[in-house]
Amino acid sequence: MQLGIIGLGKMGGNMRTRLRAAGHDVVGYDTDPGLSDAADLADLVSRLAAPRAVWVMVPSGDPTRQTVAALGDLLSEGDVVVDGGNSRFSDDAEHAAMLAAHGVGYVDVGVSGGVWGAENGYALMVGGEDAHVERLMPIFDSLKPPGEYGFVHAGGVGAGHYAKMVHNGIEYGLMQAYAEGYELLAASEFVTDVPAVFKSWREGTVVRSWLLDLLDRALDEDPNLDRIAGYAPDSGEGRWTVEESIRLAVPTPAIAASLYARFASRQDDSPTMKAVAALRNQFGGHAVKNRETPA
Amino acid sequence: MQLGIIGLGKMGGNMRTRLRAAGHDVVGYDTDPGLSDAADLADLVSRLAAPRAVWVMVPSGDPTRQTVAALGDLLSEGDVVVDGGNSRFSDDAEHAAMLAAHGVGYVDVGVSGGVWGAENGYALMVGGEDAHVERLMPIFDSLKPPGEYGFVHAGGVGAGHYAKMVHNGIEYGLMQAYAEGYELLAASEFVTDVPAVFKSWREGTVVRSWLLDLLDRALDEDPNLDRIAGYAPDSGEGRWTVEESIRLAVPTPAIAASLYARFASRQDDSPTMKAVAALRNQFGGHAVKNRETPA
Amino acid sequence: MQLGIIGLGKMGGNMRTRLRAAGHDVVGYDTDPGLSDAADLADLVSRLAAPRAVWVMVPSGDPTRQTVAALGDLLSEGDVVVDGGNSRFSDDAEHAAMLAAHGVGYVDVGVSGGVWGAENGYALMVGGEDAHVERLMPIFDSLKPPGEYGFVHAGGVGAGHYAKMVHNGIEYGLMQAYAEGYELLAASEFVTDVPAVFKSWREGTVVRSWLLDLLDRALDEDPNLDRIAGYAPDSGEGRWTVEESIRLAVPTPAIAASLYARFASRQDDSPTMKAVAALRNQFGGHAVKNRETPA
Amino acid sequence: MQLGIIGLGKMGGNMRTRLRAAGHDVVGYDTDPGLSDAADLADLVSRLAAPRAVWVMVPSGDPTRQTVAALGDLLSEGDVVVDGGNSRFSDDAEHAAMLAAHGVGYVDVGVSGGVWGAENGYALMVGGEDAHVERLMPIFDSLKPPGEYGFVHAGGVGAGHYAKMVHNGIEYGLMQAYAEGYELLAASEFVTDVPAVFKSWREGTVVRSWLLDLLDRALDEDPNLDRIAGYAPDSGEGRWTVEESIRLAVPTPAIAASLYARFASRQDDSPTMKAVAALRNQFGGHAVKNRETPA
Repeated sequence: MQLGIIGLGKMGGNMRTRLRAAGHDVVGYDTDPGLSDAADLADLVSRLAAPRAVWVMVPSGDPTRQTVAALGDLLSEGDVVVDGGNSRFSDDAEHAAMLAAHGVGYVDVGVSGGVWGAENGYALMVGGEDAHVERLMPIFDSLKPPGEYGFVHAGGVGAGHYAKMVHNGIEYGLMQAYAEGYELLAASEFVTDVPAVFKSWREGTVVRSWLLDLLDRALDEDPNLDRIAGYAPDSGEGRWTVEESIRLAVPTPAIAASLYARFASRQDDSPTMKAVAALRNQFGGHAVKNRETPA
Repeated sequence: MQLGIIGLGKMGGNMRTRLRAAGHDVVGYDTDPGLSDAADLADLVSRLAAPRAVWVMVPSGDPTRQTVAALGDLLSEGDVVVDGGNSRFSDDAEHAAMLAAHGVGYVDVGVSGGVWGAENGYALMVGGEDAHVERLMPIFDSLKPPGEYGFVHAGGVGAGHYAKMVHNGIEYGLMQAYAEGYELLAASEFVTDVPAVFKSWREGTVVRSWLLDLLDRALDEDPNLDRIAGYAPDSGEGRWTVEESIRLAVPTPAIAASLYARFASRQDDSPTMKAVAALRNQFGGHAVKNRETPA
Repeated sequence: MQLGIIGLGKMGGNMRTRLRAAGHDVVGYDTDPGLSDAADLADLVSRLAAPRAVWVMVPSGDPTRQTVAALGDLLSEGDVVVDGGNSRFSDDAEHAAMLAAHGVGYVDVGVSGGVWGAENGYALMVGGEDAHVERLMPIFDSLKPPGEYGFVHAGGVGAGHYAKMVHNGIEYGLMQAYAEGYELLAASEFVTDVPAVFKSWREGTVVRSWLLDLLDRALDEDPNLDRIAGYAPDSGEGRWTVEESIRLAVPTPAIAASLYARFASRQDDSPTMKAVAALRNQFGGHAVKNRETPA
Repeated sequence: MQLGIIGLGKMGGNMRTRLRAAGHDVVGYDTDPGLSDAADLADLVSRLAAPRAVWVMVPSGDPTRQTVAALGDLLSEGDVVVDGGNSRFSDDAEHAAMLAAHGVGYVDVGVSGGVWGAENGYALMVGGEDAHVERLMPIFDSLKPPGEYGFVHAGGVGAGHYAKMVHNGIEYGLMQAYAEGYELLAASEFVTDVPAVFKSWREGTVVRSWLLDLLDRALDEDPNLDRIAGYAPDSGEGRWTVEESIRLAVPTPAIAASLYARFASRQDDSPTMKAVAALRNQFGGHAVKNRETPA
């Protein structure tokens, strides 16, 4: 079928390629003219036959909001917009309402698979009305992995990004669990070949997983992880997951611990621990470690 | 090759079956005469030709210790004992020394795979001297899964159980991460088909794993987990992992959170929260929830 | 000086009493006519001489927002409104802007002290412009405790509620720490008189505090806390503190743990632990504890 | 009364001074002849009249064990030994048995108060038999603070060190809670005078405590804690508290978080976060931060 894609970065560009390979008629737009098929959004819309479908794949927050707003003005009754970016689920209702005012449908899609998705297919978590989702199924079928899994219509508008957010929250916890185990093995005097232990776990164990395969791959490349600093950014979904745990009064201690470990990894010096050290010094006369270069 | 197995419960019995199917000559002993091939330990030893190999598969702690001690008296120089049970890694040096006094070798094996191991093969994490491990390779090869993974000689005596302990510590963290995500999805108003979301994650996502497959299976059987109480025992390795995190000064917040969540799941009423409620009442005049049946 | 107070519940009523005892001219309004001095807000405003000062002491969220909006319409240039309730700090800028449109000033005050404040004085954390705060100092001086502490002008609009929010976040952590220690002592076989240990800590120890005094008091009344269920509500500030930790990327694991412990205390059965139990059952064949009354 | 003290460091030396000021006849021994009253342990024992009381104030572990063993040989039936050091509670039964073989009694005392105890008195948590504790009451009365609190006979042998261990575990949680609040306030744009907020909390608030007073003192000396590195050692009791939480299956998430924060504060680079960063790189192509000086 015909699809417009807005945003042809690593994800959007690979999706265009994958969809074209499946025989779809894809018109892409990007602010980089070297990547773009269309001159601007209006041009992209004009190249699509009604009822149109446009997939937005731009950074979450303002860029997505502005793109959706612009599409509302350009599209017509019966068209549908897909937000396949990393929007916070709470943006979706607003996007849907903005478009509904123009008679345009809205579907939110959480996409997983990272750089491997281009080859293996992208797992898709979809939120929106049945009629809108059904119209897009040819696209979803071509993007998703070939097997029986990798696609879910999770609920109404927002459900796709919500499911993706929780997916990423879980991912934080899984990564932290493997990483804590890695540090324990590396610290212990018992296990002498830590990478070999991780490699062996790839089959027959309870902890086997795709992330484990990737950790094995990383250890093949750098057995002591000497070249990598213990510094981990976070990209929004982990924070939103913990915010949701608060809103819903659901205890998520392992996921929160994983998020906090990332926060701490980005601190040169912890103000919390400065205060703890100051207290120890006050009551116990314990020596403190002075900062080498006082601020 | 020839092997004695002591302990023919769910694990030991399945191993005997799997080894015999692979052509090994296995003599089993169990306190249950209906399962046992030998009348007692002395009889089992007498049925094996030197140099003998005996696999101990009995509960950790005293039962394993007593079995190893008894084997020390019965076996001869050049024989080797395998502890394939769930011993704490710190028991292994003692077991090895006990046997070394008789010239008998000792190998510790952490076994993963649960009830699925009988069919799929058991992942094996092995600790001990090279010569002892090499002698046992035909047995290990028949127990392990068919692929290139699932076996590691992780280090000297104790390394096998150590690696298995960390494996299980990671497993606690993984399970907790999926389970926290499950609770969030179930609590949220956005996702209307929680089991479908988990099922979809089995392909193409970052969180795909064997545990995820099992959770999907559990949700197929009981979509709201209505039949299962939120009550989880723990079996030793999780505790030992956290103890090791303390000994080695390695922060393992996600694994510790997972262990504590299990502890909390087994409490009818939390003394900690009774004290918190008492404090709130004292300073804020907040009403407390009275116990329905005062103890 | 003259002050209007809106909201004469436990806190507002006690404040009126304390202020009148200090010689201030206080006009109170409450929806309960039996408590109120004025017929309605307009009547309250009409009884105050310009420039007026009105202290709002109503529930946070909509009630406070509506009261502030109504005062904006009733008050005049040069008047000032105090929000002494438990508003989220992020509401303050909005309240201030709403009033500034009428030339009315705004000061936010976080109030601590609980039911004991009536007698001991209320600790006040204040945010707002210097001129507004200065005008209110006679009121603050009469509300605060008699000593040299208990009052701070913490910064501009919002700083008062922000400081109070962090105060309460810390309070959650302190309570949890004492409560965890209580549970350990109660669980251990070593200490035979747990309340006596807490009582002894009131002097000479590092952990002495007002909360410890209150816990001792609670244990005097109910030595095993038999009459109190392990069930603790939370009142907003703890959640906001953890939300701020996410916004600011500040790891606050102890405070988050305290909040989650309260969430968990209010669950009859934990969906997280149901999922963990389901997983254990799937891979290990571990028996699950069935719910006695399947939902 | 007459007392021997072994170990005249910061704690033991101050205790000798305080006891002498109270009129007791104290004979001290230290390996530093400049501090010591006696030539050796035998000399110390010979200077005391039976029934003797000897207070051991040396580092925990081997030094205490060896001192207790030596005293067992030197003392006589009816004498009593006090271990006032920071021994793990689990050492006490062994010490008591060692001495009981000689008819010598044993009392364990957890001592709190830090460097301030010399002046304010030391809080004492005592374990042992009634008869032994009663004999030592004149000493305890002179060491403890002057008020009605600060002393508890918590139970049999081990109860004193157990209570002190939990005291310190709570202390870890309290310090972490204040410190997390400090970091939040320092990170936020709302509060402009963080030290003033802490100072104000000393009166009228729920969080007032001795530790808060000390934090205020530290902020007076160094308002941004610029001179102190975020590096906090731990001294045993925190670890033992978490170990006990595992043994007793008591969830202590806030105390464990406090301990882990200290562990993390001492790491230059976190292996856990290296593994997390490696995983992010593998699945997402996320750039990693390279170590500046690869190991």
